[in-house]
Amino acid sequence: MDDFRLCPNVNFCSLCAAPVVVRIPDDDNRPRHVCTVCGEIHYINPKVVVGCLAEFGDRILMCRRAIEPRYGKWTLPAGFLECGETLEAGALRETMEEAGANVQLDGLYTMLSIPHASQIYVMFRATLAEPVYAAGTESLEVALLSEAEIPWEEIAFSTIHRTLRHYFEDRRRGRFDVHVGEVAPSHQRPLPDA
Amino acid sequence: MDDFRLCPNVNFCSLCAAPVVVRIPDDDNRPRHVCTVCGEIHYINPKVVVGCLAEFGDRILMCRRAIEPRYGKWTLPAGFLECGETLEAGALRETMEEAGANVQLDGLYTMLSIPHASQIYVMFRATLAEPVYAAGTESLEVALLSEAEIPWEEIAFSTIHRTLRHYFEDRRRGRFDVHVGEVAPSHQRPLPDA
Repeated sequence: MDDFRLCPNVNFCSLCAAPVVVRIPDDDNRPRHVCTVCGEIHYINPKVVVGCLAEFGDRILMCRRAIEPRYGKWTLPAGFLECGETLEAGALRETMEEAGANVQLDGLYTMLSIPHASQIYVMFRATLAEPVYAAGTESLEVALLSEAEIPWEEIAFSTIHRTLRHYFEDRRRGRFDVHVGEVAPSHQRPLPDA
Repeated sequence: MDDFRLCPNVNFCSLCAAPVVVRIPDDDNRPRHVCTVCGEIHYINPKVVVGCLAEFGDRILMCRRAIEPRYGKWTLPAGFLECGETLEAGALRETMEEAGANVQLDGLYTMLSIPHASQIYVMFRATLAEPVYAAGTESLEVALLSEAEIPWEEIAFSTIHRTLRHYFEDRRRGRFDVHVGEVAPSHQRPLPDA
């Protein structure tokens, strides 16, 4: 039942407005929100966050967040995948919305599960053809930053920190692999991104 | 607005049971289901399907579906990622539930967007240590099938067809890459899986 507490509250049926109960449906093996009148089962599943690590020369396109959570912290352009979108389309859209940048995707780079948040992060490598960018409504500022310029102590999310770290390591050794992994809750990590 | 029609119906607020309307929230750029009383925005996002292409020698673990959609058709063990799960944990769970098989994961293999269904398929390569398997409640039968034995005209989903096709091509050339792509609606495809 532990995992169930990670899901949002559902009190009423979104189809008929009757109360829902939490029970294990007959053909299932875990508790769901089930309508007491129409019987609809309201499944809740993890969400996908998609974005880009976009480079221009030796610098990376980064955004300082103008929204919570982590207002004022630095991140890569990324956001929730929308219905009807491919992962690639979502990554390009978020990069345009948050960083005002039109990038070319170079391939999947990191895919990180965050089970305690019920999220999957999918980050692509990308390239800016020109150093053209602008802060969108969700960004305080946007900048192209070298490895030394990145405010490593001011990164918004562990997934972003890890994606950047993989990138600079891979760049030094001259090969970019796809990285698949898991991000644990911060209280289970000995260091911010260990 | 086209993409919005791909999302499920939401008539009432799951928090307070009041009617919802479809409108673009002030700080957003696309229509959402918004509660007329408490103001809650009910975001709907794509779901992740996760599973395994598991091999034992030169044969692949496949399941014949005992549920709709595609009752009676063949598939690889896969299903919706659950809240609180990593992608790897979900792939292992689905393989146990549908095929009664305990496999070892060998890495990410395919990641396919299905925008018209608002789904992302994430398939791992895996290995069975022993030829031990059994049909779960969602499978009519489970089998280890060679390339020639696979009922290619009876595959349940395009994503599964494409994952299998990549696998046998990659196996012949001796290298397994990660494949990222998109599956178009069947009426836009010249062949079942072109």
